[in-house]
Amino acid sequence: MFVLVNLKAYPCDPIEVAEAAATVSDESGVDVGVAPQAADLSAVAETGVETWAQHVSPVEHGSHTGSTLAEAVADAGATGTMINHSENRLKLADIDGSLDAAARPGLETVVCANNPEQIAAAAALGPDAVAVEPPELIGGDVSVATADPEIVEDAVDAAAAVDESVDVYCGAGISTGEDVVAADELGADGVLLASGVAKADDPQAALEDLVEPL
Amino acid sequence: MFVLVNLKAYPCDPIEVAEAAATVSDESGVDVGVAPQAADLSAVAETGVETWAQHVSPVEHGSHTGSTLAEAVADAGATGTMINHSENRLKLADIDGSLDAAARPGLETVVCANNPEQIAAAAALGPDAVAVEPPELIGGDVSVATADPEIVEDAVDAAAAVDESVDVYCGAGISTGEDVVAADELGADGVLLASGVAKADDPQAALEDLVEPL
Amino acid sequence: MFVLVNLKAYPCDPIEVAEAAATVSDESGVDVGVAPQAADLSAVAETGVETWAQHVSPVEHGSHTGSTLAEAVADAGATGTMINHSENRLKLADIDGSLDAAARPGLETVVCANNPEQIAAAAALGPDAVAVEPPELIGGDVSVATADPEIVEDAVDAAAAVDESVDVYCGAGISTGEDVVAADELGADGVLLASGVAKADDPQAALEDLVEPL
Amino acid sequence: MFVLVNLKAYPCDPIEVAEAAATVSDESGVDVGVAPQAADLSAVAETGVETWAQHVSPVEHGSHTGSTLAEAVADAGATGTMINHSENRLKLADIDGSLDAAARPGLETVVCANNPEQIAAAAALGPDAVAVEPPELIGGDVSVATADPEIVEDAVDAAAAVDESVDVYCGAGISTGEDVVAADELGADGVLLASGVAKADDPQAALEDLVEPL
Repeated sequence: MFVLVNLKAYPCDPIEVAEAAATVSDESGVDVGVAPQAADLSAVAETGVETWAQHVSPVEHGSHTGSTLAEAVADAGATGTMINHSENRLKLADIDGSLDAAARPGLETVVCANNPEQIAAAAALGPDAVAVEPPELIGGDVSVATADPEIVEDAVDAAAAVDESVDVYCGAGISTGEDVVAADELGADGVLLASGVAKADDPQAALEDLVEPL
Repeated sequence: MFVLVNLKAYPCDPIEVAEAAATVSDESGVDVGVAPQAADLSAVAETGVETWAQHVSPVEHGSHTGSTLAEAVADAGATGTMINHSENRLKLADIDGSLDAAARPGLETVVCANNPEQIAAAAALGPDAVAVEPPELIGGDVSVATADPEIVEDAVDAAAAVDESVDVYCGAGISTGEDVVAADELGADGVLLASGVAKADDPQAALEDLVEPL
Repeated sequence: MFVLVNLKAYPCDPIEVAEAAATVSDESGVDVGVAPQAADLSAVAETGVETWAQHVSPVEHGSHTGSTLAEAVADAGATGTMINHSENRLKLADIDGSLDAAARPGLETVVCANNPEQIAAAAALGPDAVAVEPPELIGGDVSVATADPEIVEDAVDAAAAVDESVDVYCGAGISTGEDVVAADELGADGVLLASGVAKADDPQAALEDLVEPL
Repeated sequence: MFVLVNLKAYPCDPIEVAEAAATVSDESGVDVGVAPQAADLSAVAETGVETWAQHVSPVEHGSHTGSTLAEAVADAGATGTMINHSENRLKLADIDGSLDAAARPGLETVVCANNPEQIAAAAALGPDAVAVEPPELIGGDVSVATADPEIVEDAVDAAAAVDESVDVYCGAGISTGEDVVAADELGADGVLLASGVAKADDPQAALEDLVEPL
């Protein structure tokens, strides 16, 4: 299982979370990544944690003021990127373009989507992984694996029907080790989470609880 | 073969094109549709031609000022709609939403895309048809079926791998009967065209040339 | 006072509302316009009511599939258009472009905005009118003129400071004649309203109540 | 005169340009800023150069994956931000929102726009500065101050008519000291430039040429 902690634009200390994630990953052997604001990528990467961008733009080098260039996030230390998060939905053609952009510097990719049909569509574009996150559960207290286990199973089936090599993650409401185990049992290869760690009083303890049952 | 004439925002007379399309369709037995501006849908539908919208919004009845409501275009006489044309690219989630919207009043749907990967993605969302239109050939003098026959064949294969029930159209640069025959031979179920008819001095003659070899 | 009834994508009968608006306008002498879906413009215009588009695209004749061409809405009978409604926010450069587009066929224009600063910005672009509609009050039961009279007065002042020839409308929550009188007394030249008429059991009675005190 | 070097998504070394800008600024006394990719902000700021963001999102702390949070760019060392560059056009309401966001951590702001009408609109929103950049001249070989001096003078007048405290910059095609002097004489308080420095073989020499006549 891969655990990706999305810091969004939360008022957390990205270095504190990154150091906690690096420590927990080392101690548990579970792969834990952290996705901070672009401006925080280099500082987060310096902690040694696996560092992800929250987004890369569907552009090449050139006249693209305000874009997030894949090469720039890679130079800052990112090794992967989220694409099409529900808070940053992209045009279909731009998801395709952002995947091309991420491939140039060798960033790993996870394309987010709302439901199994969109997961199949995302998988058809050839990312490393897709992530199903029902928008109505994001930020809530109930894990997708508990509230809507079928959507996770259907997403796993939908992605496999298109391309068996694409991993499937799930997200929305995940905050405990039981949630992660449930996601694992439903066939997910990883989980996306955010507030459960980023807003925790003790991010390291929150992460230890998360990976403990694995 | 289905022939869909997209009037875009061209300075043509939509009624003249619609009447020409209705006449040619009746005489040839070839299915010819016309997609005008939303404001022209009812006048075009009154000619008896098969009438398509250029777009419907991913919304239900409600507070959506400036949207193009699927029910409104159906009430005006449209029986189908284009979605995600390269001049009106949508977010992945909104293509899904526009397909849901079109299904409510029973509109036929064709989702446009740039390349075979995006065609597979579009097919995964369950439209009636997908249409591959390489952006660099749109509006040009060379037909996609001549300039890039492989992209049409690859699109046909990509859609079939995801869902065999989804028709595949192609577009970009199509203006002659030979172009339509070439598209047919590459496996396409229809063609999208625009300037070749909409900007012709004699739209009826242009359409007659198009369907003559079929 | 100008009264503009925005039908949004509501499940109302646009012809019923248009006929009611035409009747009330004739009987009362108050200028009442109706803004339906683009696909309904010609049917609404045929009732004789003053007909407005909900939006026009910042484009000229050309390759703009899915756009709302100013000439097309004018040909369908519209004599004015809303621009930048809070449910259809545009880029600053596109508000400017939509105003240029509306000017070609001589459409009247009202640019909507959230607050007095944005009203001043909108007025600087040279529309016929601006309309202040606080997003948090749109669709609610309390009129902007009651809930936030200062925002209307400030909008009137802000527009006048930039260009005294620009009319100022207000909207959000307006449903009674008292609301219209209050708007008038705060310096507004017109009101935008929607659900209060479009969702009324008897649109004509609702409009008669609205204009009665004028 | 303020000289702001926008690195866009160019394949330049941001540190080399930043060090050159810091050196030239120190030696000449001319205020020179550098606007790199968000991921490069902290490394650029460490050179001691005045550091600007290319964009900030119209959001507060919260669930905004993929946004560019004003506080994050300020923490990384930025002291100012561009908003609404022609390659990153924003909705009017979002320019207003980005200005509010930039104000929280005290970032200086410059809002870009295409023409004098939009400059007046931008000035009405209360930024520290506005910048007129005719899109057709951006990236070209001819300076706006030479190709279209009237647009600069008109922008200066338009901003002053709305708010005299707002500075006016100009950009597009500026690459020599003569261009900067011409801008100064037309009433501009600063210049935006990009490829002339970012793509120069020797950025420091390019900057020295630029500020030499001042």
